[in-house]
Amino acid sequence: MKRPGTTGAATGPRPRPRERASPRFTIALHGGAGVVPRAAMSRAAERDYRAALATALDAGYAVLAAGGTSLDAVSAAVVAMEDSPLFNAGRGAALTAEGTAELDAAIMDGASLRAGGVTLVTTVKNPVLLARLVMEETRHVLLGAHGADALARTHGLETVAPEYFVTGRRVKALERARRGRDREGWLTEADRHGTVGAVALDRHGNLAAATSTGGRTLKMAGRIGDSPIVGAGTYANNTTAAVSCTGEGEYFMRTLAAYSVSALMEYRGLGLAQAARFVLRRRLAPLGGSGGLVAVDRAGRAVSLFTTPGMYRASRAAGGPPVVAIYANDDRKERAA
Amino acid sequence: MKRPGTTGAATGPRPRPRERASPRFTIALHGGAGVVPRAAMSRAAERDYRAALATALDAGYAVLAAGGTSLDAVSAAVVAMEDSPLFNAGRGAALTAEGTAELDAAIMDGASLRAGGVTLVTTVKNPVLLARLVMEETRHVLLGAHGADALARTHGLETVAPEYFVTGRRVKALERARRGRDREGWLTEADRHGTVGAVALDRHGNLAAATSTGGRTLKMAGRIGDSPIVGAGTYANNTTAAVSCTGEGEYFMRTLAAYSVSALMEYRGLGLAQAARFVLRRRLAPLGGSGGLVAVDRAGRAVSLFTTPGMYRASRAAGGPPVVAIYANDDRKERAA
Repeated sequence: MKRPGTTGAATGPRPRPRERASPRFTIALHGGAGVVPRAAMSRAAERDYRAALATALDAGYAVLAAGGTSLDAVSAAVVAMEDSPLFNAGRGAALTAEGTAELDAAIMDGASLRAGGVTLVTTVKNPVLLARLVMEETRHVLLGAHGADALARTHGLETVAPEYFVTGRRVKALERARRGRDREGWLTEADRHGTVGAVALDRHGNLAAATSTGGRTLKMAGRIGDSPIVGAGTYANNTTAAVSCTGEGEYFMRTLAAYSVSALMEYRGLGLAQAARFVLRRRLAPLGGSGGLVAVDRAGRAVSLFTTPGMYRASRAAGGPPVVAIYANDDRKERAA
Repeated sequence: MKRPGTTGAATGPRPRPRERASPRFTIALHGGAGVVPRAAMSRAAERDYRAALATALDAGYAVLAAGGTSLDAVSAAVVAMEDSPLFNAGRGAALTAEGTAELDAAIMDGASLRAGGVTLVTTVKNPVLLARLVMEETRHVLLGAHGADALARTHGLETVAPEYFVTGRRVKALERARRGRDREGWLTEADRHGTVGAVALDRHGNLAAATSTGGRTLKMAGRIGDSPIVGAGTYANNTTAAVSCTGEGEYFMRTLAAYSVSALMEYRGLGLAQAARFVLRRRLAPLGGSGGLVAVDRAGRAVSLFTTPGMYRASRAAGGPPVVAIYANDDRKERAA
């Protein structure tokens, strides 16, 4: 993987070049802040979600443990969640008002500040891999619609019929949303807050973040959310942190939520958890936005924070146990398990 | 115009609500950092550019002088430049590799932090007005491709045939670019750095920013640049500043250039000019990016900065003379004129 170094005689905090291998590595991921309410979650459904989160976590952790890059780790974790019909990304994506799946994804490399995003994708099985192609094979950062699907074909990325993404559960959610759209609160948490993402620090000291989503149920065709936008839903910078967000995308775009975590660390000297809490409580919430994020800093500290009743999430640090959680306070239980 | 106030008991710097009328108002605009080299600029061409910049400046200034809003002022200034075939926005836009015009625009309201953006638009005469529709009439922030064109039709916004945007000059530029694409430096400054934008502070103390572009000549179809992205090419926040950028969009996206100016003011306490200079020199340049920006802060101080040989630009503060400039050090000459 090419990682162009930073050049120039600039002063001030700069992305750090690749460092000597360190035993410290970490991955954290989320499957969306839109969890099914605890009372409505069956034992079987909860088991399925936990298993799917553990599968994605294992996929990413294995890459890091073998000395692989954070870019490969977050790609592997997000691909696993895109392939699962349980999450709002790839197969199982939320549907637009027209009943179609329009997929967004992004990936960012904290070492070089290179990034790739795709939006309004309709035929690419794993949008996060297409985002990575944009980052590594084009001069562009964000590619949309027909141009994105065309790039996938040019590079032989696996494509599928648009129907591949559509699941019975999301069709029902769309019908519910259409019936109730004039009522307050017609969108359930799960309809509003789906998205998957992962962040990682690898043995080489490099951070990466990736996010993938189907967006919001009943979204207007052509709506682009925060996930594919550098600094809104996805950001990574070796100087500070890697961040992936989930929630009502419009608020994350207006507050530049992912980048704001980094800016508060870099320009105000906050720690990762402080910065993340500040963004969710003092920037997002006052505008009316809710959601969550996972983030990891250059020391390998990971945080999962959300202002919703829960967030599908998992994390694992080098040599530590896997932690899988859904509701608030689940982490401790899981850690003990 | 609805300006939802901020809510919640959050502390920390917040967007300021509308204030009592003040005599202080300012507008600044740019017509792109990709100027024709001084040696190649004919007297007639320079006269045309200066006249077009003055027209756009007058359109925006008149709104402010009459007590209008900064949103209306930046809209009026950008519409004037979209309508001029001289600038890379609206009519006269740079063409994609496929010879088509795919237009991007955004607008942001510093009082409410509401924003609207559109991308990959092909039939809307004034993309900045469509961006404003997205902000004011939808729940979304960014709308792309067919969804954006459909919204315009729903609201009766003026549409045109895709050929309306295509000018002979841009067709020639595309041919030049196609012939020379394998050589170093095949893109001229003018091909790389076009974009128009405006920022304003109105009598009510509210800041706004707007940007519109055709993107880069020979861009891959589907490529989305920084202009329509909140925080990349366009940002406004009453707490800090309004910013509109022009340049190689990918670098402005990776550095969150427009928002970074605001973050440096808010989180590190820099003044507007310091913050803008830091972003261009210490963030953009080290990655290899060039371009410029116009910005205005809450006190009405305006800056125009660029790392290119020139930037089409104009500004005018309440009661002051209009300033129109193209090359570095032009401002003084103009101011004296």
